This record gives sequence, structure tokens and C-alpha cells, in this order.
Amino acid sequence: MSDATTLQRLADLLVGFGANVQRGQIVAVSSEIGKEPLTRAVATSAYRHGASYVEVTYSDIHVRHARIEFGSDEALETVPAWFGERILRLGDARAARIALTGPVEPGLMEDLDPARVGRDKSQALREAGTVVNERTTNWTIGPCPTPGWAALVHPDLEPEAALAKLWEEIVHVCRLDEDDPVAAWRERMATLVGVTERLTAARFDAIHFEGPGTDLTVGLLPSSRWISAAFETADGIPHAPNLPSEEVFTTPDPARADGVVRSTKPLLVGGATIRGLTVRFEGGRAVAIDAEQGADTLREMTRHDEGGARLGELALVDRDGRIGPLGTVFYDTLLDENAASHIALGRGFDFAVGPDDVERVNDSLIHIDFMIGGDDVAVTGITAAGERVPVLRGGAWQL
Amino acid sequence: MSDATTLQRLADLLVGFGANVQRGQIVAVSSEIGKEPLTRAVATSAYRHGASYVEVTYSDIHVRHARIEFGSDEALETVPAWFGERILRLGDARAARIALTGPVEPGLMEDLDPARVGRDKSQALREAGTVVNERTTNWTIGPCPTPGWAALVHPDLEPEAALAKLWEEIVHVCRLDEDDPVAAWRERMATLVGVTERLTAARFDAIHFEGPGTDLTVGLLPSSRWISAAFETADGIPHAPNLPSEEVFTTPDPARADGVVRSTKPLLVGGATIRGLTVRFEGGRAVAIDAEQGADTLREMTRHDEGGARLGELALVDRDGRIGPLGTVFYDTLLDENAASHIALGRGFDFAVGPDDVERVNDSLIHIDFMIGGDDVAVTGITAAGERVPVLRGGAWQL
Repeated sequence: MSDATTLQRLADLLVGFGANVQRGQIVAVSSEIGKEPLTRAVATSAYRHGASYVEVTYSDIHVRHARIEFGSDEALETVPAWFGERILRLGDARAARIALTGPVEPGLMEDLDPARVGRDKSQALREAGTVVNERTTNWTIGPCPTPGWAALVHPDLEPEAALAKLWEEIVHVCRLDEDDPVAAWRERMATLVGVTERLTAARFDAIHFEGPGTDLTVGLLPSSRWISAAFETADGIPHAPNLPSEEVFTTPDPARADGVVRSTKPLLVGGATIRGLTVRFEGGRAVAIDAEQGADTLREMTRHDEGGARLGELALVDRDGRIGPLGTVFYDTLLDENAASHIALGRGFDFAVGPDDVERVNDSLIHIDFMIGGDDVAVTGITAAGERVPVLRGGAWQL
Repeated sequence: MSDATTLQRLADLLVGFGANVQRGQIVAVSSEIGKEPLTRAVATSAYRHGASYVEVTYSDIHVRHARIEFGSDEALETVPAWFGERILRLGDARAARIALTGPVEPGLMEDLDPARVGRDKSQALREAGTVVNERTTNWTIGPCPTPGWAALVHPDLEPEAALAKLWEEIVHVCRLDEDDPVAAWRERMATLVGVTERLTAARFDAIHFEGPGTDLTVGLLPSSRWISAAFETADGIPHAPNLPSEEVFTTPDPARADGVVRSTKPLLVGGATIRGLTVRFEGGRAVAIDAEQGADTLREMTRHDEGGARLGELALVDRDGRIGPLGTVFYDTLLDENAASHIALGRGFDFAVGPDDVERVNDSLIHIDFMIGGDDVAVTGITAAGERVPVLRGGAWQL
């Protein structure tokens, strides 16, 4: 399935629809060693779409491994200033940005001290949040299948069959198996935009999640707006920030989250696998983080700053998307977060609240989504008057 | 020969002696897709030497191929402003810099329009020259053997044997076959420093090259000083900018070069192979550039700016180095320029002249070395009084 035509169709979808690259734009592509074929297809597509420059940045997880294994404590805290400055310059230049997700060597970090893995600051840039909130770049994040990722997702299959299966799934969830993938995306987005309008109109004061191991109430801000992945830059360029995307989301009140939540899917954070995660919140703060695996890494990451232990996102996913029904755990946030409702520790989105509440949006270096929804998790809206309104039951919208 | 020990010895030589990385320094590593093993060994060595951050930049020749094949004319002229700014920031941060040379896929550009290959601006940054001239970073350039490079250098050998042979040569020319490579380098450097002192003391007004197809006189500036690859930063950190290095060099007068010169080795420039190069100079300017192959690419590159057709470097190489005696054409400037005396079109080195002459040093975006020396090329110094003093005869120093 990773033939040249499929690569090109995925690249064209990311460039032409996801980021919606405009003639004369600089295009920054964030990739990783091991993702060269799709990266090159994206660069080619971007030049065909008229890019004035395609800047490809390949990270190398082995270099990160060396930093955590051999770097001084100072090294774990150091990120060159020009990394963040470059992101701001991309915003100034009104550039397009494309990132390719999916782990290449999922187990590589597992021989390291998990606390040092979590303490490593190099994985997050505050300026990335700034540019997203200022809406100065048209950007997208898309998946890049690799043999290592395929082996993680389909461990029972032979390497070639696993990769073929992963590609097949990616093609399906990206709607590349449609004659006109862009038309299919526009139709799905229209549905989700309708949901966001009804949710925003309901003006809930809080959202309640209830299911096996989960009883969590998350407060919303007075002006919290619900949004789908149909974005527009400040200059009016429409783009799809995630491909695929099946979610509607908003920015919650970082001061109000109470109860316990059990993650319904494992996740990979900074190269560490976190399984069986449970988090207890009090007054908006994650006061206890436990897991069968990887708790130390996540705990350290939430300690980067004050906002690391508070919520920046609350997202709902119905059962009509293409990812959930597959039943596949992808160990990649881009995909797994679109299989189930989720919340994120860390940075919130300014553009999901009104001007009066921007100051209250959670601020942090990190933004870590984890999945808490599923067909057996009931989602209920609570109005300021205390009325309880069903939102999702059995994965179906109730409003 | 590319076993883990050899990789580590080469990495340690580049980090510990070449760049001479200091504790707490940021280290920028400039690499390329296809050079991951040595790149990772360099990163590991740098962290072991106390680097506070190792920033690895992998370029991808396929992305460059896409730019030249599909990019607009605007794309060939565009380089994001933050590329150069980053280099200046490396200087501000007093960072160390390590670059790995050697082609990975030497023939890749050959299906492209050579004029477009030459017009592509992305290969040179003016700020790189600025930082070199300000001596704010301790830097080195070292070779990275790859299968593609080995096949180019040893086309008659099977792939594995070719790579083994190339590694063997790299180990030899880097003096890694010595028990103490650093001591061997210090000894060779002491010899070359002695030569630079005698050449500088001679105060030649010009250098005359005479051999088969070559009769070229290059003027020097009144304060031109001869230098070997024993550098020191403005802050006093010694470093070896090239490993290996066998040359002594100076900055010539860009207004005085007359005659013809025939290149004694082919070279790879911007991915294009240039063979059988002859250049005619008048009044310091290259007025005719001809070649059996690749002339168009070189001509376009010299047209980037006014200084592109004038000389910025003049370097002499004796027969006592380790590269020339191998008789191998490496198609890589780092190695080939240390096999034979050479000149470079483009940017000159401010630090090889006195303060009064800095304004006269050639300025350009490009710096392209090509080899013009050999045992059958006589090198003669000409004093201001017109006296002719033998400098190299049969590859041996005469002073």
C-alpha cells in the first residue's frame, strides 16, 4: 500500500487540503529520520503547489536518546533560543507548516531513566503554541506509516503484512479510499461544524464523563466555544490542522476539574509508552498520576511548569468517525485522539474562548492528550442552573 | 572498517580535537540523510564531552532535487531569512560546529537542468562566512564515508569492498591508524605552521603556477598572511577547521589573477560533477570557464554575485601529506583540496590579511575550491621587486 501513488495521494492531501499551501509560501515540514519517502513526496507536492521554499526538519530519536543517556542535567534543560525564534519567524513569514507523526522506533527510549525522559525539555516549544494561537500559519499534522510503527500496532503480523495493514488503515481513515477525498472531508467537517454550533449554543458550565473507572467533571469558561478541525488563519486561509480529524473540542476552565479518570487507550509520550493511566483531579489540578507503565515520564512532564498539571483541552468524538470503529490502538495521538473523547494536560487554545477569557486559558510548555471516552462512557453537559443534558450516549450525539 | 569502534574514534577525533568541544557548549552538527551512524556517534561524543545541546541538522538531497525539478524560479532564489540568522546566533552563543562531508548519492542531480542546479541559492549562506571571519565558533569539517560515495570513488570494486576501501583511506588520512591520532596531527601541524611562517616572512607579491595547461599568476595583498588549519577562536579555543588538513593558504588580491589554469582533479559542486575544468583569468576575473562536464553549473554559481568570479583563497599542498600519495580522487573538496594546491572562487578569509586589507578581501556567497596543483606544477613566489623564488618543485618545499 505504500506504493508511489498512495504516497503522492497522501502528500497531496496534506499539502493541498490539510495545510492548503498557497503559491509563494514558505513551507516548513517537520519530519523524522525513517520518514524520508513521505517527506520527499510532501516536499515535491509543496513545490508543485508553488511553494517558494520547503524547509524540511528531520529529527533523530537516536540523538535524543544520546542526550538523555549521556547529557548533563544542564543538557536536559537546554533548548537553543533560535528554535523558538524560528517558529515565530515562520508566523511572521505567514508560512505553511506540515508535521508528520507516527513513531519510527517506538521502544527506543525504554532502556532510559523514565524521569530523565520526562525531564528533557527539547520536545516542546512555547512558541509553537503562540503561533497556533495567533493563527499566522496554515498548518496540518498527518500520519506517516513506518515499519516500526506497524510492528507496534500489529505485533501479530509479519513485518510486511503489518506495514501493509497500517497503510490500509491510514488510507481508510484519511478517506483516501474515496474517489474524492477532499469532498468526503468537507462532508464530514460540515457534520462536525453543526455539532459545534449546537454545543456552543447550549452554553454548558461543565462536562461530566462517567464510565468504568471514570467519574470526572470538567468546568468550562463562560465563553468556551466548541470548534472542529475546520480552521482558518488570521488572513483567511482555510486549513485542516489534523488529518484525520473526527473531534470537536474546546478550552476548559483550568481551575475546575474534579474526580477521577481512567485512560481508555495507551499513549506514547516523548518516546515513552504510558499504559493503564489513571489521573485524579482536584480543583483543576492533576493531584495523582498513576499508570501500569510510564507514570514517571508523564509526572515529570507535568512538572515542567504550573500549567502542566491542569487541563487545556476537552474534546468529544462520536462513533461515526472512521478511527474508533477500527478498534486499533495506534499509539499515536493524532489517530487515537480521534477514536475517543479526550482531555489534554497543558496548553489551551486561546481561539476557543472569547477575548474576556483569554487570560484564563491554561498556559504550559506541554500539551498531552489522553483518551478517556468510548461507547461505554456517558458524556453529559451541565448548565449553570445545574440542569443535566445528555451529550453522548453509546457514542451517539444526543443534541 | 565502519565498525562501532572506528565510528567512535572518528567521532571522538572530530569532537575532541577537530571542533574541540568545551563543556557547556551548544554543538551544531550539519549532516545529511544517509550519514546517520556517524552523526549519532558525533552527537553521543559531544554529549560525553559535556555539550549542553547537540543540534543536528540533516539535509536531504532529494528535497533539493524536488526544488530544482519542480520549484518556481522564485524558489531557486529563496532562502528563509532565519537560516542565516541561526548561523549568527550560533556565533553569539559561542557554539561549536561540526559538519560531515562526502556525497551520499553523487549522481542524483544529473537528470536536472545544470543551469538551474547552479542557480539554486540554497547551498550557500553569507552568514557562514561572517561567523568564520569573526572566529566566534570552534568548528571542524570531517568526512563521512557512505556506500554511494564509495561507489563513486572505487567504481571497480564491489559495493562492500568499495566501502571498506574508502573507510580504510579515511582512517589513514585522518591518522586514525596511529596509536595517538591527536599527537600525529599536532606533529604535522607544527611542520605546516613552520611553512606558513617562512611563506609569510617572504612577503611575496604574487604566486605563479606553471604546469601542463596551467600558467597562472595570482596577486597577493600587501598584508596577506599564510595560515594552516591550526585555528583559534576569538576566545582562544584552538580547533582544527578541517580534518584531514594538509594545506597552507592565504587570501589573495581579488583584482589580480591572470593566465589560464587547468584543474588537476574533478570536483562535485552543488551535486554536479565538474570534469576537465579550465579557467582563464583576466584582471582577477574568471572570464572563461570551460569543462568537459558541468561547466554550466559552475558558471551559474559564479554569477550569484560580483565576487563569484574572483578568487578568495590560494592554497599550497606539499607531497608529504597523506592524501596526495593515495592517488585517489575523492570527489570531495575536503579531501581533494588537501591532495593538491588549489584556488577558490568566491569568499575570502578576513583573518588571513591585516586590518588595512580587510576591505579588499573578496566577498561572495560562494566559495568553490578547485585543484590546480600536482608534482608537475611548479609554484614560484614573485616579490614586489620581481624576484622569482621557488616555493614548490616536484611537490617539495623549496623554502
